[in-house]
Amino acid sequence: MIYFDNAATTKPSFTALEKASVFNTEEFYNPSALYHGGIVNKSEINAAKQKLLSFLNASSHELIFTSCGSESDNQAILKNHSRGAIVTTLGEHSAVYNCFKELERLGRKVYFAPLNKDGSVDIEGLFDIVNSDKSIDFVSVVHVNNETGAINDINKIADNVKKINPKTVFHSDGVQAFGKIPYKIGNGVDLYSVSAHKIGGLKGVGALVKQKTVPIDALILGGGQENGLRSGTENVFGIKVFEYAATERFSELTKHYENAVSIKEEILNTLDKSVYTVLSGDNASPYVISISAKKLKGEVVMHALETEKIVVGNGSACSSKHKFSRILSACGYNSDVLDGVIRISSSIDNTKEQASALAQKLNEIAHRLKKVK
Amino acid sequence: MIYFDNAATTKPSFTALEKASVFNTEEFYNPSALYHGGIVNKSEINAAKQKLLSFLNASSHELIFTSCGSESDNQAILKNHSRGAIVTTLGEHSAVYNCFKELERLGRKVYFAPLNKDGSVDIEGLFDIVNSDKSIDFVSVVHVNNETGAINDINKIADNVKKINPKTVFHSDGVQAFGKIPYKIGNGVDLYSVSAHKIGGLKGVGALVKQKTVPIDALILGGGQENGLRSGTENVFGIKVFEYAATERFSELTKHYENAVSIKEEILNTLDKSVYTVLSGDNASPYVISISAKKLKGEVVMHALETEKIVVGNGSACSSKHKFSRILSACGYNSDVLDGVIRISSSIDNTKEQASALAQKLNEIAHRLKKVK
Repeated sequence: MIYFDNAATTKPSFTALEKASVFNTEEFYNPSALYHGGIVNKSEINAAKQKLLSFLNASSHELIFTSCGSESDNQAILKNHSRGAIVTTLGEHSAVYNCFKELERLGRKVYFAPLNKDGSVDIEGLFDIVNSDKSIDFVSVVHVNNETGAINDINKIADNVKKINPKTVFHSDGVQAFGKIPYKIGNGVDLYSVSAHKIGGLKGVGALVKQKTVPIDALILGGGQENGLRSGTENVFGIKVFEYAATERFSELTKHYENAVSIKEEILNTLDKSVYTVLSGDNASPYVISISAKKLKGEVVMHALETEKIVVGNGSACSSKHKFSRILSACGYNSDVLDGVIRISSSIDNTKEQASALAQKLNEIAHRLKKVK
Repeated sequence: MIYFDNAATTKPSFTALEKASVFNTEEFYNPSALYHGGIVNKSEINAAKQKLLSFLNASSHELIFTSCGSESDNQAILKNHSRGAIVTTLGEHSAVYNCFKELERLGRKVYFAPLNKDGSVDIEGLFDIVNSDKSIDFVSVVHVNNETGAINDINKIADNVKKINPKTVFHSDGVQAFGKIPYKIGNGVDLYSVSAHKIGGLKGVGALVKQKTVPIDALILGGGQENGLRSGTENVFGIKVFEYAATERFSELTKHYENAVSIKEEILNTLDKSVYTVLSGDNASPYVISISAKKLKGEVVMHALETEKIVVGNGSACSSKHKFSRILSACGYNSDVLDGVIRISSSIDNTKEQASALAQKLNEIAHRLKKVK
């Protein structure tokens, strides 16, 4: 099986799992316990925090472990202390988008900034909004778009937002960026959501990175774990797998990035442009490539590929219940293009040879299906 | 190491971990994905739901997977549709107690029912409250008290609450009951929180069992997983470990229960009552025994035991930051008793021989420390 749906989830790192397995055997203790085993596990959690923060070069930030990127987004958006109008983009993951829709339903003034064709935020449109309403005090812009791979320069956007209103809290969903594209967190980025299972960690683990000086409340109340900001017994095993998997990714970030670039190049060079349209831009994250099969349904192509033992995504797995992608619709594509969308997303486990095989099969399938039609 | 802090967390079941490991290797797919691997994992999650529900004999209930018992409690209390006054007890886990305190802070009328000396709810006190305020439409009573092991007859309590106001939504935190004491969920129990890591599953997995007809909202918004009631990529591996570990517990529930009873008897028979007071009642869950060392600090006894390679808890790990146990204070114990509290909690991994060794060491330590004093 050749797997090209790594933006949906990645295969957990075997070495990270092995290394962390001790936390399910001899070191299974509750980190809140006051005896040795508990105290050791608490310090293991703190070590994981420091390691993950170091990858972002984050010196004025702290880190809260959560159960997923979605929980991190929810806490950042629903539990920050802003009370004014709030802004996000039309290119957000559902975890961000639906939190904004919920706040809108509850009566908050909410703005959605428009997108460019490649899925990046329309900077002019965003700043027109930020300039238009002095009550805006919270802005959330996704770092890497999970459908097109478009990268937003969030450090610069955050700084410019704060030039207009220094009290604005700035959040970014970094789930598709963390461990994949080179990035050091800017001082203007107050809240940053990351996820373990997109980079070889386990499902059920995420984190919210936050400026120490920016207050937020807990989304889950209880025993007061994570300095009162996230109750519930800490998932020590999952946290350590996250730390170890992230260490693998960050220790060779450039090499992995170049591998992803060569995979993207191979696919785009091999793909027959008479049957496929490329939606992702040249400046996008090389890990995500959005294409559209001309006059074919993406789902049909996906299933045809599956019979050839190659797996790709059709749009975001998280929004698989909707007919067309909300995000690609917002990019301005018509229903013909939207109907044919396929998302190819690579990881360190993919090779150039797999990319070549994928693109060739995509070409064959499109030509074959068109003949049948 | 002899481990007697199983109410804090249990050692994960090795066989459950082994059996579920495939979900971190060949079957690591995102359950929302539309290809074979995703569809299989979605059905594996549904099979886990049905299995867990069957253990409660739950035919009119459904199950939402969450990241922990605390999240289940938070969703049950903060996201149900009651808008009237709400009632809980003074014997609740912090995850329940702090949600009630939060709603009180937000202006809701909140009542806390008193406790009996053994930690069970004072039934008369509870129904005095329920009868006193016609606006009460939500009641939460813990099933097994996590500090004393006291069992509340929640099916009967729920039925009687509904005789007074049939529209009341009834919730119970079942974290210390599920997989330990024999129980079939009553029709009056609308919401029931359970946790995986207390019965050989992993930290980071819980569930909220709910009456299909009782509406609640999501605590975490996003991609709409779990029928829109809990977004975030499902933790397939953790869910399957939960299913397998619970199956081990429920398949021999009676045998395990009898083992726990014999452990409790051994401890209580061996313990020198001139130096220890037993706080847990005779009708309590045999898995939790609360005792108090006379004129000694529980923490000191705990650490002395640790040097003998025996681990016990001192009060709930989740509330380890407070000087005295909130719950045992509510039972009416004075500071002398509260100062000496030790919680002994067993699991299927404990033996009668370990129980004997524990009780003897407890006696030795108490006498030794008293001499030094």
